Amino acid sequence: MSGSIYGKLFTISTFGESHGPALGVVIDGCPAGLELCEEDIQIELDKRRPGVGAAATKRNEADKVQILSGVFEGKTLGTPIALVVYNEDAHSSDYSALKDVYRPGHADYGFDAKFGMRDHRGGGRSSGRETLARVAAGAVAKKILKSLGIELTAYTLSIGPIRAESFDASVIYENPYRFADPIAAAKADSFVSALKADMDSAGGVIECRINGVPAGIGDPVFDKLDARLAGAMVSIGAVKGIEIGDGFAAAMSRGSENNDPFDLNDGKIVTTTNHAGGILGGMSTGCEIVFRVAVKPTPSIAKEQQTVTMNAENTTIQIKGRHDTVIVPRAVPVVEAMAAITIADALLCNMGSRIDRITDFYKR
Amino acid sequence: MSGSIYGKLFTISTFGESHGPALGVVIDGCPAGLELCEEDIQIELDKRRPGVGAAATKRNEADKVQILSGVFEGKTLGTPIALVVYNEDAHSSDYSALKDVYRPGHADYGFDAKFGMRDHRGGGRSSGRETLARVAAGAVAKKILKSLGIELTAYTLSIGPIRAESFDASVIYENPYRFADPIAAAKADSFVSALKADMDSAGGVIECRINGVPAGIGDPVFDKLDARLAGAMVSIGAVKGIEIGDGFAAAMSRGSENNDPFDLNDGKIVTTTNHAGGILGGMSTGCEIVFRVAVKPTPSIAKEQQTVTMNAENTTIQIKGRHDTVIVPRAVPVVEAMAAITIADALLCNMGSRIDRITDFYKR
Amino acid sequence: MSGSIYGKLFTISTFGESHGPALGVVIDGCPAGLELCEEDIQIELDKRRPGVGAAATKRNEADKVQILSGVFEGKTLGTPIALVVYNEDAHSSDYSALKDVYRPGHADYGFDAKFGMRDHRGGGRSSGRETLARVAAGAVAKKILKSLGIELTAYTLSIGPIRAESFDASVIYENPYRFADPIAAAKADSFVSALKADMDSAGGVIECRINGVPAGIGDPVFDKLDARLAGAMVSIGAVKGIEIGDGFAAAMSRGSENNDPFDLNDGKIVTTTNHAGGILGGMSTGCEIVFRVAVKPTPSIAKEQQTVTMNAENTTIQIKGRHDTVIVPRAVPVVEAMAAITIADALLCNMGSRIDRITDFYKR
Amino acid sequence: MSGSIYGKLFTISTFGESHGPALGVVIDGCPAGLELCEEDIQIELDKRRPGVGAAATKRNEADKVQILSGVFEGKTLGTPIALVVYNEDAHSSDYSALKDVYRPGHADYGFDAKFGMRDHRGGGRSSGRETLARVAAGAVAKKILKSLGIELTAYTLSIGPIRAESFDASVIYENPYRFADPIAAAKADSFVSALKADMDSAGGVIECRINGVPAGIGDPVFDKLDARLAGAMVSIGAVKGIEIGDGFAAAMSRGSENNDPFDLNDGKIVTTTNHAGGILGGMSTGCEIVFRVAVKPTPSIAKEQQTVTMNAENTTIQIKGRHDTVIVPRAVPVVEAMAAITIADALLCNMGSRIDRITDFYKR
Repeated sequence: MSGSIYGKLFTISTFGESHGPALGVVIDGCPAGLELCEEDIQIELDKRRPGVGAAATKRNEADKVQILSGVFEGKTLGTPIALVVYNEDAHSSDYSALKDVYRPGHADYGFDAKFGMRDHRGGGRSSGRETLARVAAGAVAKKILKSLGIELTAYTLSIGPIRAESFDASVIYENPYRFADPIAAAKADSFVSALKADMDSAGGVIECRINGVPAGIGDPVFDKLDARLAGAMVSIGAVKGIEIGDGFAAAMSRGSENNDPFDLNDGKIVTTTNHAGGILGGMSTGCEIVFRVAVKPTPSIAKEQQTVTMNAENTTIQIKGRHDTVIVPRAVPVVEAMAAITIADALLCNMGSRIDRITDFYKR
Repeated sequence: MSGSIYGKLFTISTFGESHGPALGVVIDGCPAGLELCEEDIQIELDKRRPGVGAAATKRNEADKVQILSGVFEGKTLGTPIALVVYNEDAHSSDYSALKDVYRPGHADYGFDAKFGMRDHRGGGRSSGRETLARVAAGAVAKKILKSLGIELTAYTLSIGPIRAESFDASVIYENPYRFADPIAAAKADSFVSALKADMDSAGGVIECRINGVPAGIGDPVFDKLDARLAGAMVSIGAVKGIEIGDGFAAAMSRGSENNDPFDLNDGKIVTTTNHAGGILGGMSTGCEIVFRVAVKPTPSIAKEQQTVTMNAENTTIQIKGRHDTVIVPRAVPVVEAMAAITIADALLCNMGSRIDRITDFYKR
Repeated sequence: MSGSIYGKLFTISTFGESHGPALGVVIDGCPAGLELCEEDIQIELDKRRPGVGAAATKRNEADKVQILSGVFEGKTLGTPIALVVYNEDAHSSDYSALKDVYRPGHADYGFDAKFGMRDHRGGGRSSGRETLARVAAGAVAKKILKSLGIELTAYTLSIGPIRAESFDASVIYENPYRFADPIAAAKADSFVSALKADMDSAGGVIECRINGVPAGIGDPVFDKLDARLAGAMVSIGAVKGIEIGDGFAAAMSRGSENNDPFDLNDGKIVTTTNHAGGILGGMSTGCEIVFRVAVKPTPSIAKEQQTVTMNAENTTIQIKGRHDTVIVPRAVPVVEAMAAITIADALLCNMGSRIDRITDFYKR
Repeated sequence: MSGSIYGKLFTISTFGESHGPALGVVIDGCPAGLELCEEDIQIELDKRRPGVGAAATKRNEADKVQILSGVFEGKTLGTPIALVVYNEDAHSSDYSALKDVYRPGHADYGFDAKFGMRDHRGGGRSSGRETLARVAAGAVAKKILKSLGIELTAYTLSIGPIRAESFDASVIYENPYRFADPIAAAKADSFVSALKADMDSAGGVIECRINGVPAGIGDPVFDKLDARLAGAMVSIGAVKGIEIGDGFAAAMSRGSENNDPFDLNDGKIVTTTNHAGGILGGMSTGCEIVFRVAVKPTPSIAKEQQTVTMNAENTTIQIKGRHDTVIVPRAVPVVEAMAAITIADALLCNMGSRIDRITDFYKR
């Protein structure tokens, strides 16, 4: 088992190694009648391509997506949607030196321990390219959410010590670091240039905000909406933590501070603060959903590192090839995609929660 | 759907409202031949009962577990193990005042939004008592892990501003705060007493360490071992965040600092540091697995709070009844239980990962 | 794994050995707001109790069901519904002679091969008593279906060579053989009495008809409605075959005979014949759903049989104790229950199939 | 949901419309280290191509499969294996006449009822071409089984009134009807020619035999091995029934005839007869597994049929285009594929059934 299937009713099944023939995803459970074309998906895929700043890798593929099934005359059929991207610009020879060596911070050793073998080229299945399939599926989920008035915005909150101090959603995709704060973006460029010169790398924090989710989405026990978001986020390579609402800071506050008072706004129930991040007891409150994920520094660095070979010999390694000094910016659309998929799935699962709504649904 | 089922091969299905007739769990997928008796489960259940410190609630039930199936002559049969605990000491009348009011920080509003109704008595399905079923199932998972040489230790790392500064596993269940540091435990007692006088509450952080998991457990994509642990932890009520290894601190470090160099120890591959917390690319490295969860302050406080009624009228609320000033200590065995269940499931799922091991398994 | 969980959104998790403390089921995914009391379930459980005819076993327990969770003030909460029946009248000593012997036609040998052990008392998990949990869960599913105007009727079509020749639903539970034809029931009584004197047993065929399922329920590939019904039916102990509509007879007919012409009835699309049994391409047509299951003869017979012991020695066996000469009548409510659970689940899964209906659902 | 995912640990996710760009499958859960190349899959795909007899359609595509992922240097990686076949020879114009008309015996009406739309070209997702993905996945499952010494043989037992009277496995793929009896094959050719002249079609029965499955595979309750096989078989388009072992005939026999006596063969436990078809109580007995499926007559016939339009008007239809007079032969490899996938999955699920075997597995 490689655990490459995600979702209960909106189910995605991804495939592909970094330097194999292709990567892609099969989506089973997309409702019929949704307008969908390749351009809808391409727009999202392009967001995860390297930007122009100092953080960028030089690998720059077109990553053109093809829809192989599930769409007819511009609309989804309700049947599985297969999306594929063929690999073009893969310099496998860059990696031959790494064939027998376990790169620190990477999954190499785990693969050999689990499967007894691995595709050593570019990380194989554990490459960042794997997220391409998630973003493609997320593009479809986002279209479903959009038709329900739900919008997601993910962005870089910090890179290393550089932290955003303002928020302007319109600039996120205008700087290569995906900051919503142009000043932080400028600072990050200097920071990352220095890191690069130092043959080192940095991590950061991504924040995601989701608006328009109705109250009552998610389940009260294991399938809590935040539990599902947490699983989805930590499933993204390099993510080492997640917090919802105030998160770890809530652990330091008092009940009287952390509880969000309920109030009325035009007769609608709202909370006056949002320490909970829009989810209470696993179910959405109707407020903005907010969470943050911690991304570790890119493990591939040019600096010399101590490690061992497959044959259990000590050695050192210097990782060449094209690598992002910071992968945070490229993880931003992945966070958005996984959140979209999770919310879409929770919305579908929620439809059968009340007998009155079921009888009403089938009576029409 | 209430999302009360967890696990792929070691699957638990929990049930029960705080003030209903009973709570319990059905475990499907426990291997046959494991020695198991009610005492094995009772020991774990007793760990989540209130301690004697200032943090404790006064509700103090026997919580006697019964095994209804799946065990014969002291051993598991491989068939579903049903465990049940009947509710005895439930003062429903304590809650009648809360019937029409949404308690801040609780799931009440979410329940009504989702299901159109709720059992208002003691939080119903969202009560802390729900975790009883998790701990019961965790007791079984822990026995499986023990037979494989795997041990788990969860403990309080901080309560409000009080943070542990030493580690002695032997004291965890000798203080009501589940600190592994007796000095921190003493400080916590003063802190919590003051909070209680103030009619307020606090949160904290729980750390969990798991030793003995072989390398290669977990899957490289969605079912990463840390992704599954993250989902499991955030599914525990009041948990608002999780971090694996260095977690959010990793987001501030450099690749050269955060990467754990591989080395050899008696010919065995190990890492010389463990910033990764024992998991790389979703698969265990064979090192100690370490993660922390953030627990929010108990939302039930005696202090007056602003809120609204079911009928959308503004009101205030003072929550009476028996509530823990800090729920962190009682969440400690729950963290351990959910980790045990998750690891046991991942171990079972991993058995089919290599054709040579499968053919070897069936040849015998 | 014992494979005791069934259903995707309406999920049942059953437990219990024939002579263990109790049997039962946890239902996760029942919608909230459904009126439900113990009597609703008891009525169905009573249908699987032995009748008064020659076919009956003498084991005659009260089988009183208790609702342990998920129901509050007479309505379902949307949370898991746990149902339990304690075993009372279990004569374990009847079975001690069978401890080391594999009964022909039973699961005994399979259990030992799979689990390395078994509860030999009364078949343990493979006892007919296991179906009690299915019928209890089915009672809940039937209430959901009833509120959607869907009705199920299962009945005996044949016992050994005795085949029904008329259909009157009102007599099904007025004869111990569950025939819808009183003349067949009378003939069956003579036939079964003779069998009993002969220390032998017989099988039969059960037919089930389901009315009111809207068109378009079920999925076009693996989760075809008939595929799910087939899996559900063959999962009932002693069932060795299923056919939908004309079934095996269709394999002998021509396309021009077997195709059901579409026609209009008051503007509604219908078929003029129903060789398909109400399902085409895995989706319901809106016509009556019809299927039949083959039930093998009761394997427990008093006649001497050749067999082997656990220690691989030849021996003979005569099965004493209380056994039904024909189990077909007691399987009738089980067929109905499993069909109800399957249809209820398919209806819930179907709600997210069209984007227009989803947006409409969430707009209200 | 289109229900296009099958299997618990060996999971296949299929996609593709008959006249869309491509069809294919993603297999998640194939163990690592299995030798696999495109030729292994192509051989199986070629078996479902039309033969040369009277039964054949004229659509004759190359159906060249490509492996997009999961295989590296000739071995499986343990990661998802994506297999794709592009559509080449699709005459969509043949189908434009059918756009607004519901073909009797087809899924057309169900699609519109469920999804509000459909790809009318060649049946879209409900085309027989959908089985291509099953056969491709089955080729991989068969390689797993082969390495465990398990062999499957499916063949035509009857076509219309023509029934096999002898068995010679070597001739199955030497006649276009997939009979294991050359005389029956010759008779079938005359029968089918006459049918074709008559613009009509026929169905038939397929039998499948599986040897080498160890005892104890399958689960005792819902996931009985025969229940899973039944679900898998009825999920194949046009299948209307399945029986295991004696099946419906068992319903007519007596317990003393139907029970298979246990005996010893070289110290190994066997049964002297096999009325059960190799499965008792849902678990394999170690004997040959035998089942039969009923395939309905091809619904596409050139004869004029009564039907209705999408706009609810009466009309008649004559189905032109390339259609098999009998689809039984082309379903033979599909039956084998679905059986292989089901058995492979059950073998993987079974590995965690005993604690002694688990500890042994992890100790090595």
